[in-house]
Amino acid sequence: MALCKSSINGAAVNLLLLVLLLCSYCSQLEAKTHLHKWDVRYEYKSPDCYRKLVMTINGRTPGPTITAEQGDTIVVVLKNSLGTENTAIHWHGIRQFGTPWSDGAEGVTQCPILPGESFTYRFVVDKAGTFMYHGHYGMQRAAGLNGLIIVSPRLGLPEPFTYHHDRSILLTDWYHASTFDQAVGLSSVPFVFVGEPQSLLINGRGEYNCSLVAKTPAPGTGNGSIPTCNSNSPECAPFSLTVVHGRTYRLRIGSLASLSTISFQIEGHEMTVVEADGSYVEPFVTKNLIIYSGETYSVLVKADQPPTRNYWLVTSVVARKPATPNGLAIFNYYPNHPRRNPRTSPPAGPQWNDTASRLSQSRAIKARKGYFESPPQKPDRVIELLNTQNKINGQFKWSLNNLSLALPSTPYLVALKKKLKGVFDAEQPPDQVNLDSYDIYDVAKNVNATSSSRIYSLEFNSTVDIVLQNANTMTPNNSESHPWHLHGHDFWVLGYGEGTYDSNRDPQYYNLVDPIMKNTVPLHPYGWTAIRFRADNPGAWFFHCHIESHFFMGMAVVFEEGIGMVGRLPSSVMGCGKTKPHRSLG
Amino acid sequence: MALCKSSINGAAVNLLLLVLLLCSYCSQLEAKTHLHKWDVRYEYKSPDCYRKLVMTINGRTPGPTITAEQGDTIVVVLKNSLGTENTAIHWHGIRQFGTPWSDGAEGVTQCPILPGESFTYRFVVDKAGTFMYHGHYGMQRAAGLNGLIIVSPRLGLPEPFTYHHDRSILLTDWYHASTFDQAVGLSSVPFVFVGEPQSLLINGRGEYNCSLVAKTPAPGTGNGSIPTCNSNSPECAPFSLTVVHGRTYRLRIGSLASLSTISFQIEGHEMTVVEADGSYVEPFVTKNLIIYSGETYSVLVKADQPPTRNYWLVTSVVARKPATPNGLAIFNYYPNHPRRNPRTSPPAGPQWNDTASRLSQSRAIKARKGYFESPPQKPDRVIELLNTQNKINGQFKWSLNNLSLALPSTPYLVALKKKLKGVFDAEQPPDQVNLDSYDIYDVAKNVNATSSSRIYSLEFNSTVDIVLQNANTMTPNNSESHPWHLHGHDFWVLGYGEGTYDSNRDPQYYNLVDPIMKNTVPLHPYGWTAIRFRADNPGAWFFHCHIESHFFMGMAVVFEEGIGMVGRLPSSVMGCGKTKPHRSLG
Repeated sequence: MALCKSSINGAAVNLLLLVLLLCSYCSQLEAKTHLHKWDVRYEYKSPDCYRKLVMTINGRTPGPTITAEQGDTIVVVLKNSLGTENTAIHWHGIRQFGTPWSDGAEGVTQCPILPGESFTYRFVVDKAGTFMYHGHYGMQRAAGLNGLIIVSPRLGLPEPFTYHHDRSILLTDWYHASTFDQAVGLSSVPFVFVGEPQSLLINGRGEYNCSLVAKTPAPGTGNGSIPTCNSNSPECAPFSLTVVHGRTYRLRIGSLASLSTISFQIEGHEMTVVEADGSYVEPFVTKNLIIYSGETYSVLVKADQPPTRNYWLVTSVVARKPATPNGLAIFNYYPNHPRRNPRTSPPAGPQWNDTASRLSQSRAIKARKGYFESPPQKPDRVIELLNTQNKINGQFKWSLNNLSLALPSTPYLVALKKKLKGVFDAEQPPDQVNLDSYDIYDVAKNVNATSSSRIYSLEFNSTVDIVLQNANTMTPNNSESHPWHLHGHDFWVLGYGEGTYDSNRDPQYYNLVDPIMKNTVPLHPYGWTAIRFRADNPGAWFFHCHIESHFFMGMAVVFEEGIGMVGRLPSSVMGCGKTKPHRSLG
Repeated sequence: MALCKSSINGAAVNLLLLVLLLCSYCSQLEAKTHLHKWDVRYEYKSPDCYRKLVMTINGRTPGPTITAEQGDTIVVVLKNSLGTENTAIHWHGIRQFGTPWSDGAEGVTQCPILPGESFTYRFVVDKAGTFMYHGHYGMQRAAGLNGLIIVSPRLGLPEPFTYHHDRSILLTDWYHASTFDQAVGLSSVPFVFVGEPQSLLINGRGEYNCSLVAKTPAPGTGNGSIPTCNSNSPECAPFSLTVVHGRTYRLRIGSLASLSTISFQIEGHEMTVVEADGSYVEPFVTKNLIIYSGETYSVLVKADQPPTRNYWLVTSVVARKPATPNGLAIFNYYPNHPRRNPRTSPPAGPQWNDTASRLSQSRAIKARKGYFESPPQKPDRVIELLNTQNKINGQFKWSLNNLSLALPSTPYLVALKKKLKGVFDAEQPPDQVNLDSYDIYDVAKNVNATSSSRIYSLEFNSTVDIVLQNANTMTPNNSESHPWHLHGHDFWVLGYGEGTYDSNRDPQYYNLVDPIMKNTVPLHPYGWTAIRFRADNPGAWFFHCHIESHFFMGMAVVFEEGIGMVGRLPSSVMGCGKTKPHRSLG
């Protein structure tokens, strides 16, 4: 790059030509740096017509979409204007090779960012695809601190499909209770569950039924001139996606739902799935795309229906008994008015409890021929994680192999790199518990579960298999879906199974031919999911259920690998716990 | 002290007697250290029957009362369990001689305490009297983070009055909106004022009219099994003060109201005021004690009424047009049932807008003969602070001499002691603006007001006069009351005046004979208040309006004095802004 630049400054034309030739091999030639200045604060907004405090980025929720080209550098200077609350933002799906301190996982990779302070995230987007970002501190993601990252392939690298237009849709669910209310309830004894979300949002817009809200103004609106719920607020006008008949649209769809698994469909239109979590998918056609929190997909949609009217774009809750109305947006055929509702009834989503068809869609997602890297054929280590609901000291928790993660007040990455003692429990968590003796269909009764800050140490560059084993919760005949998200890596999805995993039998049926690489994968009720990854990214990395409340209740583990290779940590990630400035200014 | 201790270990009786004699002069003999371990978190509580998140200390709001003897050392190890929010606690009325870093004023004396971390406050209570503590970060005081400190005189030092029993009462007002809602409204453009409080609390208990609340359960209560407002909640049973006929009670009364100035009275009983902010008052009798936020008083009350029934203890709002119902508690004559309401109607409070009688009570508060220190007869410096309401960048603010305080992200004390550059505006704020040319009766129009981090540098041990000058707000015919509180010092109250202060005329009428020493003093509508203090406490100290919203909107100045004499700062006060650990762990 330096060569290219200085040479272009030269005058001789033949030298210039030579340099241009060289530069075609110079992979950094087109790499740009994108500087974003973000101000994070609370503001009153009405995303689903109900007015409440929302965390915004530069006045918006979802925040601005980051767009870049593969190989570019993203710089986000985040100013915390929250008043009394800290923050941190995770770049979901970005692997952070060489910049593990920019992963934004409070407690793992950094201290939180204090009010009044600015923090600079700097990282390279090394892979094309659809990614996301969101708050990764407390339950801030659910407060509206989220958005999309769209990375296009390096110039000249064609994609294995074509389309006319690129559009994106971020799906969320939305609570009227503050994240403080939610968090206190989840950690209360007795437990107070926040319940199902009030709305599903499509690109930050939903429509709550305001007649369900008392007419009294919201607390904090003072003189009462501002109603709590206003169906006519422009902030909750439905999202409208305008299309031209005959054109093909790439829809990038991500979900950062707190709780819900979402079915996405477009009335009268089929979708061809072509990308998942930044990997190309062997195309398949569906009417309902099931999307778990933390996942992204690209689908191709041809605007091939009669263009004389608009169509519904619908989201609905699956995998939990729904108590949240469907989310609606408008698939608008030009030149119909973008706000004109179709006269048809919105199509109903799939049965919420049709686990078989969701499992079937999971299995349908394979890597695209000619566009994938084969997995190592054998793992160096297998970690089986039994997912259970537990009570610890009277509080409801989620545990893996009977351990519920409790973050230390010093981030793991800093403690490991600086060799600080006493930050976290030194012993590793167990690689297995005896699954044979555990009845996954029985009500969870793991009385020995404890809170723990232990982490897994992985050998650098080793191949690690993780088998997630689901089980019954503490409620009879109930097993929940858990979308598991890995930071710092993509993993191959080796297989999904029903019932109890059998370490002798099941690996024989792993897909080692064309497994998709993802960063988030569902664990289905009463089932298991097996993944494989290379521990090739020096750092400390979360692996956790992406349901916000489950994560808050300890449903997470942490891996570390190659810490000796981690570069010099920026001082900005420190300042908490044992990294307070004891000796710096004395 | 060391002498006393080691000598007592000796055996010879005559030596012991000598030592005991010596120890009667050993002022530290009885000094104890009181260790308190506090856990600060959010919990659901119903202080006025309305259920909402409240900041608690060890499960309580108000927090535990700290009791100690003059000269004792208080150690509070504060664990922040708030989740995502920082905190800091100020020890209101404690001067912190030698421990300015323990003042708990976030942004002035310390960085905030991060979630998951513990911070140790350690200070000596060098003066007997009634004091308070409260959150001093954002608007956390209004979230319930508050309590009382009661310091009794050193053993053997008699007080100038007698009583049978010592009881204490903390007065607050209470909002149903969260402090987040309040703060966002106050900084919004357009401005959204939270309005008047929903309730007045007496020792943390009030009674909201639950019929005014919609029957829908509060957000966050999930399944709806927990009602938003429950008149039968034991948490909002009225406070009952049990007395025995014929006995005299010392009532220590403090106010940490957010907004309200409160009139306190006991049906059928007179009160003799004997203490204010830890200074003995020349006794006077009143039926209504007017108490401003930040003030404490002791009154003597004789239980001299017919003991066959209970009496009302009433708080009511003055100095603002009240929209908050009176607060009620029970003055219970033993053996009547402590919860039996009197059949009488609670007495009405004084007229809210009777400024003259409030001014008259302010003037009635003089130092007790024989129990006061005379003030220096002349000041070395006079600072006149014109109090105005302004708009700055569209936001409503409060300013002093056209400057509205904006705290830097590095605490002043640390920046000054460590000589860190660029933390705050170097220039001092002006000592005066031209009052002659300012019409205090005109609607405020200070278009030149700005936000600023400038502070006043006081010469160590100099005598400083502050003249607070009130004015009309931005609303026609409106001037508000402002209780001004000084950290790190008591001050003599030299006088109160009506109209515009005249620096030639008014000082002639200052009370230099028996002015009371206080730490909080009211500034009356369209009036002025003059105080004097010795800048004898090395450190950096807030001086601010104690109305939470006014403080939040910049109604504060900061003084610094004798920084060179400040001892070594504990590293625990650092970690934010320019005190992040740049060099400590590299």
